[in-house]
Amino acid sequence: MTPKADHDLVLTKDALVANVHFRDRDPAQLIAQKAMRVNLSDLAAMGARPVGYLLALALPGDMENIDAWVADFSRGLKRDQTAFDWSLLGGDTVSTGGPLTLSLTAIGEVKRGQALRRDGAKAGDGIYVSGTLGDAALGLKCLERAITPGDKTLIDRYHLPRPRLALGQRLYGVASAALDISDGLAGDIRHICAASGLGAEIEDKLIPLSAAAGKLLESNPGYKSLIWNGGDDYELLFTAPDHMAGKIRKISDALELRLTKIGRMTTDGTIAIQDDKGVNLLAGGHQGYRHF
Amino acid sequence: MTPKADHDLVLTKDALVANVHFRDRDPAQLIAQKAMRVNLSDLAAMGARPVGYLLALALPGDMENIDAWVADFSRGLKRDQTAFDWSLLGGDTVSTGGPLTLSLTAIGEVKRGQALRRDGAKAGDGIYVSGTLGDAALGLKCLERAITPGDKTLIDRYHLPRPRLALGQRLYGVASAALDISDGLAGDIRHICAASGLGAEIEDKLIPLSAAAGKLLESNPGYKSLIWNGGDDYELLFTAPDHMAGKIRKISDALELRLTKIGRMTTDGTIAIQDDKGVNLLAGGHQGYRHF
Repeated sequence: MTPKADHDLVLTKDALVANVHFRDRDPAQLIAQKAMRVNLSDLAAMGARPVGYLLALALPGDMENIDAWVADFSRGLKRDQTAFDWSLLGGDTVSTGGPLTLSLTAIGEVKRGQALRRDGAKAGDGIYVSGTLGDAALGLKCLERAITPGDKTLIDRYHLPRPRLALGQRLYGVASAALDISDGLAGDIRHICAASGLGAEIEDKLIPLSAAAGKLLESNPGYKSLIWNGGDDYELLFTAPDHMAGKIRKISDALELRLTKIGRMTTDGTIAIQDDKGVNLLAGGHQGYRHF
Repeated sequence: MTPKADHDLVLTKDALVANVHFRDRDPAQLIAQKAMRVNLSDLAAMGARPVGYLLALALPGDMENIDAWVADFSRGLKRDQTAFDWSLLGGDTVSTGGPLTLSLTAIGEVKRGQALRRDGAKAGDGIYVSGTLGDAALGLKCLERAITPGDKTLIDRYHLPRPRLALGQRLYGVASAALDISDGLAGDIRHICAASGLGAEIEDKLIPLSAAAGKLLESNPGYKSLIWNGGDDYELLFTAPDHMAGKIRKISDALELRLTKIGRMTTDGTIAIQDDKGVNLLAGGHQGYRHF
């Protein structure tokens, strides 16, 4: 590939394992689209425009209907290549004795020096989040029939994350730090805090919920913590000084995308999501998703 | 990353699954080095200089001594980062219910428009190969104790491929087509033939063997076909017109690397490796390694 002049490249690589990161019963087309979108979300978090991707696919040797599966998977790739205007650059397909495993490497471009970073937050900066949180995690509970009746819009949010590319591309010069929420708000805010050497104070009641999630939590209040530690949100989490509030409102209007201030960066080292009574909901051990 | 001006980037991605592409009992350091070198060999085949890599690692959830394994694996990465002057750019580590699986994405750079390709071979061009073939495949047989006594230099060739980066970087303007042999000479020459719309005629007796391989085949003649279909060679296979013979000799001398002409590209569509009596050794179904 020939890189564009005066641009930096950003690269990101994710591995997805069947029945860890997706359900092997899920339609192959949706697995393909999710794999792409998870990586596109990483590009969004850096403010980049997608250029292309490489794909490694390890297919179980004893898989049934492998040709049909691959055809369906390819349709998913093609659909999101068109939707996000990028292309397959190469890759590898191998056989495995284990579960179906994918690894996607996404390449994006951003004007030189304008990639968003995680380490620029300052004490006092507001903490913002795009869209609504918890939808995908609740959608997965619906899919698994842990919550009935299920909600189709939430299930869709689990299958098809919406990488916030247009938002990321407008945050340079506005956000002081940014990332995408993949493991849950509680886990991912830690990355900004660690990179910036700060703490964070988030108010539970400010975290934006979809109508569907709000309704479902009324009858299933036990799942409340999925809002901040369920993961799979793929919304952008960013910090910005108060004088950027007007610009952030304009971006929100232009993109017709909810951008909500949910808290503030602090100088003490703790990370808190506080309820109405000032209790830190994370103190009980509700950390983010742990891989091991 | 900031790409160098007037250069193209080349990207390659491989997936490696335990007990398919490497043995899970192999030392972690050697697994790391092999994963890197397999991808570096792809960069060599395009004439590129290594820049950096991304790594996805799926570790079995029930793995014993996981910390020690990862530490040893990391030592292997570090060693070959230094040896090949490139660096880790990012990646992902996940847990899997299946075998240990790696995917490495390698990024290299090459002067704009000077990447070597597979599709430039012309009828009459000589077919050349670097180094010696069959060593790694015979080394694996030694490791598996199918051949005893084993030979340590051959086992080393299995564990530690030697990506021919310096050679690849000198072949622009000399070679008409090039690739690296990963699946075996018989399988990989097909890629050049298919891309160039030609056939190939290779003479078995011209295929270069190491002293160790030659000696071992004397007492184990049944393994002869590993020379052209054993795979894991990671030598460069390239084509060049006859008037480049002098330049190729000079490159060979400068690099102290054997470069052997083993055959010629032809206009008919067949691919043959002929023995002394003119019998095509591939006619009996000795194709390259098949993944499925």
